[in-house]
Amino acid sequence: MKINLKNIMNKGPLKSKMNDFQDLEHIDGLSISTISANLYGKARDDLVMFYFRDGANYASVYTKSKIISENIKWNLNSKSKKIKSLIVNTRNANAFTGSKGYQGLKEIAEELSIQLSKKQGEDEDHPKKVLPSEIIFGCTGTIGEEYPTERIKKNIPELISKIRYTQNKLIWIKAALGIMTTDTKPKLAMEECYIGKVKIRIYGIAKGSGMIYPNMATTLGYIFTDANFSNDILKKLLKKNIETTFNAISCDGDTSTNDMVSIFSTAKKNNLIIKNINDKKIKDFNSALNSVLLNLAKRIVADGEGATKFITINVKKAKTEEEAKKICFSIANSSLVKTAIAGEDPNWGRIVMAIGKSGVDINLKKLSIKFGDFKIIEKGKLAENYIESNVENYMKNEKIDLTINLEMGSKFFIAYTMDLTKKYIEINSDYRS
Amino acid sequence: MKINLKNIMNKGPLKSKMNDFQDLEHIDGLSISTISANLYGKARDDLVMFYFRDGANYASVYTKSKIISENIKWNLNSKSKKIKSLIVNTRNANAFTGSKGYQGLKEIAEELSIQLSKKQGEDEDHPKKVLPSEIIFGCTGTIGEEYPTERIKKNIPELISKIRYTQNKLIWIKAALGIMTTDTKPKLAMEECYIGKVKIRIYGIAKGSGMIYPNMATTLGYIFTDANFSNDILKKLLKKNIETTFNAISCDGDTSTNDMVSIFSTAKKNNLIIKNINDKKIKDFNSALNSVLLNLAKRIVADGEGATKFITINVKKAKTEEEAKKICFSIANSSLVKTAIAGEDPNWGRIVMAIGKSGVDINLKKLSIKFGDFKIIEKGKLAENYIESNVENYMKNEKIDLTINLEMGSKFFIAYTMDLTKKYIEINSDYRS
Repeated sequence: MKINLKNIMNKGPLKSKMNDFQDLEHIDGLSISTISANLYGKARDDLVMFYFRDGANYASVYTKSKIISENIKWNLNSKSKKIKSLIVNTRNANAFTGSKGYQGLKEIAEELSIQLSKKQGEDEDHPKKVLPSEIIFGCTGTIGEEYPTERIKKNIPELISKIRYTQNKLIWIKAALGIMTTDTKPKLAMEECYIGKVKIRIYGIAKGSGMIYPNMATTLGYIFTDANFSNDILKKLLKKNIETTFNAISCDGDTSTNDMVSIFSTAKKNNLIIKNINDKKIKDFNSALNSVLLNLAKRIVADGEGATKFITINVKKAKTEEEAKKICFSIANSSLVKTAIAGEDPNWGRIVMAIGKSGVDINLKKLSIKFGDFKIIEKGKLAENYIESNVENYMKNEKIDLTINLEMGSKFFIAYTMDLTKKYIEINSDYRS
Repeated sequence: MKINLKNIMNKGPLKSKMNDFQDLEHIDGLSISTISANLYGKARDDLVMFYFRDGANYASVYTKSKIISENIKWNLNSKSKKIKSLIVNTRNANAFTGSKGYQGLKEIAEELSIQLSKKQGEDEDHPKKVLPSEIIFGCTGTIGEEYPTERIKKNIPELISKIRYTQNKLIWIKAALGIMTTDTKPKLAMEECYIGKVKIRIYGIAKGSGMIYPNMATTLGYIFTDANFSNDILKKLLKKNIETTFNAISCDGDTSTNDMVSIFSTAKKNNLIIKNINDKKIKDFNSALNSVLLNLAKRIVADGEGATKFITINVKKAKTEEEAKKICFSIANSSLVKTAIAGEDPNWGRIVMAIGKSGVDINLKKLSIKFGDFKIIEKGKLAENYIESNVENYMKNEKIDLTINLEMGSKFFIAYTMDLTKKYIEINSDYRS
């Protein structure tokens, strides 16, 4: 597949600089293979294998939906402490496919474990058998269609033949492209940081772009690091950082049956052993991880179905973070707010409506609202120097910042969403055809 | 204004039969005046006065939004036992207009009370003074724009001059037209019933069609009856029947600052005095009232912004009504479900997604889903004789029925919504221009 990265990355409200990914190198201990298993036709890759030759510690957060896909069930059943491989397919969610869908994953895991074990025998001085339970799955696509077990199984040899123990920029982008559904561009983020004196890499990929609403993990996001952390520390770091990143976005208020964000550590770097996530030594790592997660989460929104605007909603001076979050999402999930912004209309009345319907007690006399730097409402009244035409101009920007100051406390929440356009309707009224 | 009723009523997914309104006559004790106060320009009426010459008992339910419009505040402050007049304007919500907006209502009420008192003096043998507190208001339109107090006040004499103590079909339709905002057709409903041997009329009008999501009353709905009920009985009857009617609809999941549904009884019929709403003597009235409310509520959805499909969601055999309702609205408010239906795509996977994200515990093995009479899911599995092309044909209908059987209890809820189309985006991205 030919990739014109410049074309892809420069579309939409959150442009990527080419340089952002110039330095993508490899995470030691990881191999990435991508192929077309003909799930979407031959024109694009749709099956991606992440293989950890020596295993990886890991942690995942999953959808909070009461109906979960078969691959999430599989992953939850896998009690393995180390993971050898993550297989991600697109086009088919393997949700509501029942025991047959689950059985398909079992067959694939079994076949893959045999072939990966063989590969270990060929490549390693101290080969280890790969067990089916050391393989986990990410699935995304249509719910309720029969899972293409055979087509995936058939492609295992080719996936194996593509195993390389170093990655370059291209393979990272191919991986990010290979997990896309209705996304229009791949989502990648990278950070480097130090734990003590050891330099650590954190690379991540993610996909959107429909059914995006934060109930735990949203959509698919995979983070890879060469640092050495226990599963317990990874779990705590992920849970802590997911709240203000993937759980702070909403595209359409819908929650998938397949949401999954995982972090894998190959432990190839000989960093200090961390036993407590409040340890100062991982402060740097923690903020780098947050930055990777936030970067990916924002890219999901910016590429949300039909998006032309990237909207940041900052509710501050709330009594509690929970109340700030409630108001954030009442705004972020309001079709009326989102269509007004699509129409570049500074219709702040709809913001007021969304604040009201959130159910949070507010003091109207203290409420202030800003669009960008433009004061609209100040302490419950239309700002004295409010000139609508100025704000209309501001609305032409691709990035729109809404700031709501409740002046009732010291807590805040920042959420991210996009506008609601005709394109969204177009994409979703004939997604399957 | 010329009204081609046939053209108006026969548009959209829920057609009205012309005959439905053939028999609209008058509610004794009520006068309706409509005029253009030039709020929308001169082309249409935008100010409607309901005047009860001898007063009316009444009850209202209001929005549950934490931010309420000035007219709702006014109405809540009015402690009058009987109401003499309800004034409804469109184009301006009088919300977030602060003390000036409230003051405007006070001025209008004072002026109107003087002029109505004068009219009483002219028309009645035993004239009674009309007090400002006996006047209540319904406002709908844009939030945050200055309330057009003067324009409304100026038109009071003309409103008064149009007072007639009988109504015909035309004036009812004009009233329903006069309270519209983005509605494309007027919403009326009528029923007749008996209390004991006394024939009673129940007529209602309502408007939509954006910011429609049930948190108590939704949008504007006004019900008039010539029956004789106390305020207390009216309140109980309204509260009881609102739950399965106006509170069972959603267009876009947004809740207005101005929602209001009221019932007025002119007490011109000499029916038995009712002291308990469970009294068998008002069983007939109760179901007629429910029918008027449900009819209006459905018309609001059918005329929801951009609607091409009317969707009924029936969640049955739930453990509790609350859980059934949660699932109903998780489906009704899902953009993905609504766009799929707009695209005539029987994408039942999105129904499964919406059930899952509702947060209600279900037993997947018992779940059944039907589209119309077509069984899609039976006890957690794709129905054996499921043929997608048949269901695709069904999706071409203007009325789509979704039935979800949880097989977990005996409670149910029925909700109503419409599809989400490009037209919705069009309407809402330039509502104000």
